[in-house]
Amino acid sequence: MSLEDRVDELVSEIAAVDHEAARQARTRHDSLIKPKGSLGRLEELGIRLAAIAGTCPPPVPQNPAVVVAAGDHGVLAQGVSPWPQEVTAAMVAGFCDGHAAVNALALVAGARVTVLDVGVASDLPSHPRLRRAKVRPGTSDLCVGPAMSRSEAAAAVVAGAGVAQELIGAGVDLLVAGEMGIANTTPAACLIAAFTGRSPEEVTGRGTGIDDATWEVKVKVVRAALEFHRPEVSDPLGVLAAIGGLEHAALVGLILAGAAGRVPIVQDGVSTNAAALVARALAPRVGDYLIAGHRSVEPGASIALQSMGLEPLVDLGMRLGEGTGGLLAVQIVQAAAAALRDMATFEEAGIA
Amino acid sequence: MSLEDRVDELVSEIAAVDHEAARQARTRHDSLIKPKGSLGRLEELGIRLAAIAGTCPPPVPQNPAVVVAAGDHGVLAQGVSPWPQEVTAAMVAGFCDGHAAVNALALVAGARVTVLDVGVASDLPSHPRLRRAKVRPGTSDLCVGPAMSRSEAAAAVVAGAGVAQELIGAGVDLLVAGEMGIANTTPAACLIAAFTGRSPEEVTGRGTGIDDATWEVKVKVVRAALEFHRPEVSDPLGVLAAIGGLEHAALVGLILAGAAGRVPIVQDGVSTNAAALVARALAPRVGDYLIAGHRSVEPGASIALQSMGLEPLVDLGMRLGEGTGGLLAVQIVQAAAAALRDMATFEEAGIA
Repeated sequence: MSLEDRVDELVSEIAAVDHEAARQARTRHDSLIKPKGSLGRLEELGIRLAAIAGTCPPPVPQNPAVVVAAGDHGVLAQGVSPWPQEVTAAMVAGFCDGHAAVNALALVAGARVTVLDVGVASDLPSHPRLRRAKVRPGTSDLCVGPAMSRSEAAAAVVAGAGVAQELIGAGVDLLVAGEMGIANTTPAACLIAAFTGRSPEEVTGRGTGIDDATWEVKVKVVRAALEFHRPEVSDPLGVLAAIGGLEHAALVGLILAGAAGRVPIVQDGVSTNAAALVARALAPRVGDYLIAGHRSVEPGASIALQSMGLEPLVDLGMRLGEGTGGLLAVQIVQAAAAALRDMATFEEAGIA
Repeated sequence: MSLEDRVDELVSEIAAVDHEAARQARTRHDSLIKPKGSLGRLEELGIRLAAIAGTCPPPVPQNPAVVVAAGDHGVLAQGVSPWPQEVTAAMVAGFCDGHAAVNALALVAGARVTVLDVGVASDLPSHPRLRRAKVRPGTSDLCVGPAMSRSEAAAAVVAGAGVAQELIGAGVDLLVAGEMGIANTTPAACLIAAFTGRSPEEVTGRGTGIDDATWEVKVKVVRAALEFHRPEVSDPLGVLAAIGGLEHAALVGLILAGAAGRVPIVQDGVSTNAAALVARALAPRVGDYLIAGHRSVEPGASIALQSMGLEPLVDLGMRLGEGTGGLLAVQIVQAAAAALRDMATFEEAGIA
């Protein structure tokens, strides 16, 4: 089977969420010992979890995992970021050693950390936390040609799906999408512009905190890439290959396999949201399995979430990536499920 | 020592937070392996936790507890709520039995639940989770006279402080304020109007979800109470006695004793925010020990938070109380401390 066929197979494995379970959750919420609707969006989230799990009450996630997909980017040569490419590998080493923000936040969320190398420019030493599935050592410059080939994009999707399947097989019941890759907000902006139709100025943000001059370069690069490739959203894999990143492709696979396994996927920032747009274009049902963990400062993140009808759970002005914003939502997701599972109804409590 | 003297003593035990520890935390954040400022408000929260603890990095809270203070309200007779008074006691039974929203959310937050009866109208059976310190079986109608006497208010403050001291003595390192009391958003609105100078229309919300006619009654009641008592904010205990509730008074004590013990206090909704205003009027330093867990739908909650310079961590359209909104912020508070404790600096990670 070709890599593209394996992507198609993944897509075909995604079932519709269970609207009957959602209906049961909605009815149950109205019977629990509280004023109707008083848990606000926590009720909506519980209903979504019931639909994903296909049962009410939905299980309370006990084994969350964050997957940090990593890759490098040829477009860095255009000057879209002040950080050198070597920082990607250095941060991956930090994730493995447990000294990065994602490790700190995963610890308090009770989440395991898995790092996936699909495209870091340098060779990385093996580590128990690292899945080595390098497709190529970074993309080509998407300004002057495709970032990667279709089969490379498909290979990264399959690698991301493989990690999700491994984790789900090991009992993981909540996936948090994370990423690392110097310059990766540029392909993220390209993807978001392509799939939402918004302008380069609207979707391009300041990433790690670039200055005005660098931002203008970045907008020009995004515009040039879109003009060069003329992305056709009816061919999501083609768009991903032309203007995406290897870690974005891996996250597409993570999202597809998570949905196929009926495991909710908590989104982090702009790169995970860009990947979600690609995944949803491949498999429209995927949208129902996504949870927007937080609202990143990046404007493209809000544009992507809005186009998917997702409202973030946390909004703390963060713009780090790695899965950090998604991890902050883990307890909220658990709470939404626990309310449906643990609360008594007025009838059970003997309150008229 | 009189009860009022004991309140004064509590106030005198509150030290200023440690600005040097805050400065260290700010400096440390700028050295950690991430773009400066990229953890957004999580960085500010970590700095606040360092100031409260008096050390950097601050300890990561491991033993959170939610305290649900409960009381009834004479003002219910004015028709400010459609719920009968008996629901307060029934919900307290639910908290003890573990079947309410606060229990579900406390479980996933890893928080113990302690219920404090300072003013429920009926006798309550003993229960391991229940602290029985009833000052009186509900307040008087604050529309036509003081809700309680000064010494009763002081007694409830002391009872709330006692529970905080008991919990801190048992190792609790993060307090979440919660409450239950049918009609208690009316005294909360009165207190917020008194301490912020805002109008009854602005501070009065729909509580459990009242209709327009009931809301108009509630606004009239708040206005009548303010006109009758002419609260003098230079006498916070007097204001509390005149237009507050017994559970609000207990939460004032919880907040004062938490601050005295250098334990952060996570606020929940409008009643906890009203109590915080009273506590801060008694002891201005208290404000630095408070963390706004969430933004309640109640308009008075946002007005109170704004006047204290607090920005909520979570905003999910909730309006239940019990401490539920505050509990959703526990993992975020832990994450803020963990980032300062666990992350490496660029120097440690060998990244130039």
